[in-house]
Amino acid sequence: MLPMPAVRRFPLYLREIDACIERDEEYISGALLADVLGLDRVLVRKDLALTGVVGTPRLGFPVKELSSAIHSILGWDTTTKAALVGVGNLGTALLGYGGFREYGLRIVLAFDRNASLVGKTVKGVKVESMSDLSRLVRENGVEIAILTVPGESAQQCADELAKAGIRGIWNFSPASLTVSPEIMVQHENLASSLAVLSHAIAAKSVS
Amino acid sequence: MLPMPAVRRFPLYLREIDACIERDEEYISGALLADVLGLDRVLVRKDLALTGVVGTPRLGFPVKELSSAIHSILGWDTTTKAALVGVGNLGTALLGYGGFREYGLRIVLAFDRNASLVGKTVKGVKVESMSDLSRLVRENGVEIAILTVPGESAQQCADELAKAGIRGIWNFSPASLTVSPEIMVQHENLASSLAVLSHAIAAKSVS
Repeated sequence: MLPMPAVRRFPLYLREIDACIERDEEYISGALLADVLGLDRVLVRKDLALTGVVGTPRLGFPVKELSSAIHSILGWDTTTKAALVGVGNLGTALLGYGGFREYGLRIVLAFDRNASLVGKTVKGVKVESMSDLSRLVRENGVEIAILTVPGESAQQCADELAKAGIRGIWNFSPASLTVSPEIMVQHENLASSLAVLSHAIAAKSVS
Repeated sequence: MLPMPAVRRFPLYLREIDACIERDEEYISGALLADVLGLDRVLVRKDLALTGVVGTPRLGFPVKELSSAIHSILGWDTTTKAALVGVGNLGTALLGYGGFREYGLRIVLAFDRNASLVGKTVKGVKVESMSDLSRLVRENGVEIAILTVPGESAQQCADELAKAGIRGIWNFSPASLTVSPEIMVQHENLASSLAVLSHAIAAKSVS
């Protein structure tokens, strides 16, 4: 695996690179990419070296080759199937977010504990019962789970997802999860991000 | 301002503490809080010391006092008004997300560049024209902007928000923003988070 800070920057590069491709440009220089994104040039050069794509002096990197190398590194060259667990406010919001498709992620299943939701279609995805999770995840070849349940049910859901053979959990719940090391967990904490922002504003108001 | 890693953990503590209050418990120990959240006990003790609330040996910390101290540190004891800029997929999703109210954040305004959206009501919030941004942000005492525009328009929007006197920008666009140091920017990059997850899964598939 590549260093995570570099991996986090690849989607930023990809947007610029794909914009070049749309403008029918053939090459992009690392320096230009760095400047557009406001990043350090040395850092960008090192990141791009990780792709294995070789640049040409004066011209830069061939954009198509770079784009497909980054897509492949990120696993975005193939469609990954995801299941969303917890069709509350945030879950519904994410079900309706079309942007994931751009990253090769397709939410094919949704689950909820609430019997009154099961069987309904939310944002085009039918809500299934948690008791069918293991079977449906396997049958549909789902690799990633998007976890949008309350903190108190998160660990139990993670356990069920682990049993179902899920490979990665994108955890939008506030709880920390304990899973076996083969399962990758990415914790997304909107409350924590907002805390950073609102604390800074509150602290400045006081001083 | 307090250390950011600690600030990011406060919302996690708050959930557990508020759960104690709901169960009519009077005290919570730092050790219990650490264990429930799967965090290091020494770390949690240090974080809680930042609140200024004094614990009692054997009993722990008084939960009501602790809750109000953390709310105050995070600026969640008062309502902060927010404006959402960019009513696309993600913007609409966030407008519909009720969870922000819990953190004292109320989205009172929405803006979009698209004339066909202006005047419409999305998830209960009327979409206003970008040309009214400065006036409406000031008139409504909006402090935080939630930026959900494409990368290419992000900087221009940030400039307009800065002129309008916004104090913090929660940036969901993929672009890095350059703003004056008085404005706090919190960058939320869902694509980067997904990149970490999908790269790890792709890398394991190869190896």
